[in-house]
Amino acid sequence: MAVNKPSVPSGMRDFSPEQVLKRNYIFNTIEQVFQKYGFMPLQTPSMENIDTLTGKYGDEGDQLIYKVLNSRIHEAKEDKKTLMRNDFELMLEANSNSKNLVEKALRYDLTVPFARYVVMHRNDISFPFKRYQMQPVWRADRPQKGRFREFWQCDADVVGSDSLLNEVDLICIYAEVFQALHLDITIKMNNRKILHGLSEYIGVLDKQVELTVAIDKLDKIGKEGVLRELSEKGFNAAALAKTESVLNAEISLENLKELLVNSELGRTGIAEMESIFSLLTRLNLNIRIAFDVTLARGLNYYTGAIFEVVANNIQIGSIGGGGRYDDLTGIFGLPGVSGVGISFGLDRIYEVLEELQLFPKVEGNFTQLIFCCMDDEALRYALPLAQHCRQHNIKTELYPAATKLKKQLDYANSKKIGFAVIIGQEEMQSGLLAFKDLTSGEQQKIEVSEIIKLLVRS
Amino acid sequence: MAVNKPSVPSGMRDFSPEQVLKRNYIFNTIEQVFQKYGFMPLQTPSMENIDTLTGKYGDEGDQLIYKVLNSRIHEAKEDKKTLMRNDFELMLEANSNSKNLVEKALRYDLTVPFARYVVMHRNDISFPFKRYQMQPVWRADRPQKGRFREFWQCDADVVGSDSLLNEVDLICIYAEVFQALHLDITIKMNNRKILHGLSEYIGVLDKQVELTVAIDKLDKIGKEGVLRELSEKGFNAAALAKTESVLNAEISLENLKELLVNSELGRTGIAEMESIFSLLTRLNLNIRIAFDVTLARGLNYYTGAIFEVVANNIQIGSIGGGGRYDDLTGIFGLPGVSGVGISFGLDRIYEVLEELQLFPKVEGNFTQLIFCCMDDEALRYALPLAQHCRQHNIKTELYPAATKLKKQLDYANSKKIGFAVIIGQEEMQSGLLAFKDLTSGEQQKIEVSEIIKLLVRS
Repeated sequence: MAVNKPSVPSGMRDFSPEQVLKRNYIFNTIEQVFQKYGFMPLQTPSMENIDTLTGKYGDEGDQLIYKVLNSRIHEAKEDKKTLMRNDFELMLEANSNSKNLVEKALRYDLTVPFARYVVMHRNDISFPFKRYQMQPVWRADRPQKGRFREFWQCDADVVGSDSLLNEVDLICIYAEVFQALHLDITIKMNNRKILHGLSEYIGVLDKQVELTVAIDKLDKIGKEGVLRELSEKGFNAAALAKTESVLNAEISLENLKELLVNSELGRTGIAEMESIFSLLTRLNLNIRIAFDVTLARGLNYYTGAIFEVVANNIQIGSIGGGGRYDDLTGIFGLPGVSGVGISFGLDRIYEVLEELQLFPKVEGNFTQLIFCCMDDEALRYALPLAQHCRQHNIKTELYPAATKLKKQLDYANSKKIGFAVIIGQEEMQSGLLAFKDLTSGEQQKIEVSEIIKLLVRS
Repeated sequence: MAVNKPSVPSGMRDFSPEQVLKRNYIFNTIEQVFQKYGFMPLQTPSMENIDTLTGKYGDEGDQLIYKVLNSRIHEAKEDKKTLMRNDFELMLEANSNSKNLVEKALRYDLTVPFARYVVMHRNDISFPFKRYQMQPVWRADRPQKGRFREFWQCDADVVGSDSLLNEVDLICIYAEVFQALHLDITIKMNNRKILHGLSEYIGVLDKQVELTVAIDKLDKIGKEGVLRELSEKGFNAAALAKTESVLNAEISLENLKELLVNSELGRTGIAEMESIFSLLTRLNLNIRIAFDVTLARGLNYYTGAIFEVVANNIQIGSIGGGGRYDDLTGIFGLPGVSGVGISFGLDRIYEVLEELQLFPKVEGNFTQLIFCCMDDEALRYALPLAQHCRQHNIKTELYPAATKLKKQLDYANSKKIGFAVIIGQEEMQSGLLAFKDLTSGEQQKIEVSEIIKLLVRS
């Protein structure tokens, strides 16, 4: 057989032990807070029926869905193969699907599978249903720095309740997670109803989506870029002037009350924001929360409050976001289920914690103690001692061969093992073991019971 | 848009909150033991380059690999499309691959990606390399009871060491995990070198694979079935008679010493088993470990000790297995890396724990306390109280609307919440809250500080 030079697919990653432990630190922190607020875990399959996914993410999104080829197509009968050939021609012409060739596709986000789950289990679920989900998703996007084809989403949603207390809970979750991660953040907030009101004020009610999409790019393309894009979309000079006047993160809810006095939905949006802020004043959250009328969030399904989290001391874009949507499950035949959700950007949070050196030492998961033996008799002698240490919950290895001590200690160092016990003839006779602190280099001769006491304590 | 009646793909599963928590109980138990023995976590991508996977699992295995269609094939140039058409015809004829259509495939097991990782990172890894991996794999197999198309494997392997102490460590891991799960098990052991010796003894050295494959089916098709299959494979009467005489789980290593006296490899296998058993006598493992010459394990790459775990009080087949292989990474250009590994059958373990009612209560992860409010003022009053309870690590919900108390308590019951605080005008005036034990129905009026004391203690 020809020997492959192995690699991983573009945009996908192996995670080394240290990376897994650091990622788990983030996952576990988020999960504990989710559970503290009454959210329960849900997991859905990696694959969904292709109909479940297509048509939910827009044309561009549809192109990014990974499709899984039906298996054993070569075993099909000839007439079925004819259908396959026809369907294949259609797939070569456009981004079409064919049940004859492709029945399943890989999860593109966690929201659509969640909606599908809620509809399937509508009769078993108690609403409000509060679930979290932390699973990988796949997108055939062009890989670039910080953008992967396999990446993890961490979502929490409440569906079946339109109470603004849910928004408050989700803000508290953000605050508590990032406090636990020692990360200084700002939560930006806005409301789609206010953006609706703005489009009324500007006089472009029919171009609301264009306005939202353009404002969403403010960070990237600047005020001039936004205005240029809106001009191209047909905004006239008066509309552009009004837009320019409101493209200002400093505008307060008080200012907006005057501007949006004639927009009913706009007034509702302001009232919602005031309610949320009023509720938040009852809590002492140790984070910055800022109303920002220029926050738009790209996803079209948001209809109420929207959130975005940015880290304060580092330029990296948002590390979380979310909002309220009025109709999550209508696409699957269950209309009128309102919900609100947030998402954590795991990969970006990882990058921020790495850059600001905020990861705790993950050595707690590493081996604490290694037994190094000078001969085979010592190995047999050490085996029950190592087991004894493990019974006291000390993470323990017995180096499995009596090779040169240097080689054994090199192995210990490479695994960041803190302590070594070195056993030769003398130690077996006396029962006093050479116990070495591999950080300081200090060594003492003590009994195994002493070693256990030292390590259980440390 | 037409409304879909949603479903999940055949052989794939949603996991409800309770199922996720129960599965995590198993994962966490296994993971803690893995780490206690110095194994470190590794994760590989869900997709591999298709060349990495094909040709590694036999013809039947190759058919079960899920292939991922290249994206945006409709955007290819016409000459590339001609190549695709040709390749597609080849795929309709046989289980062939085509880089033009399919570059990636879904992980089929954890062993091949692990081998690929070891070869890619050979210069960064300290050997012996001890890793564990707990991730889903996908197989386009026919779904049936207990067999899924997406399922989880939990593997631990040591590579780069041929010491039998590694086999002993892995047996200890099995013992400790199943003890922690309160599951009574037997570990069956055999050695491929002994099976080699048997084929010499029987006089079918050239039909070793056939012998192993047939013996592997003993549980399913019985002694007669095995002999019939071997007869069809060309075993003569003398060979069949000898085979029948050794197809006996009661045969001891002592018996085999006589039978295999002329087989060098057979004698080595016996010596290995004796070493392992001798080392095990130094430990007091609280499980049954039994040599079983009829244990074969299907996978062809095993070359030394093989293990299989069965639960003692339930008929369900093996819940774990593994063995030693001499050349894991040769297929990727790095020969001579010996290793030994074990695997846990998560889905079967789940079934056994469920059937024997051995799962601990997972309510520890559920909400402990819910605040139920009689009016909107009470909701505002309760918000900081709920937050205060969370600051004391009590999993707390505030029912987000002042609906009928019965509805709120029904919600609490459906989520198995243990305690409720009910707040109306009277409670707000007195500061004494109605605190209800939802299991016993008992209710008392106490301050929130008392509630916290009660729940932190419980």
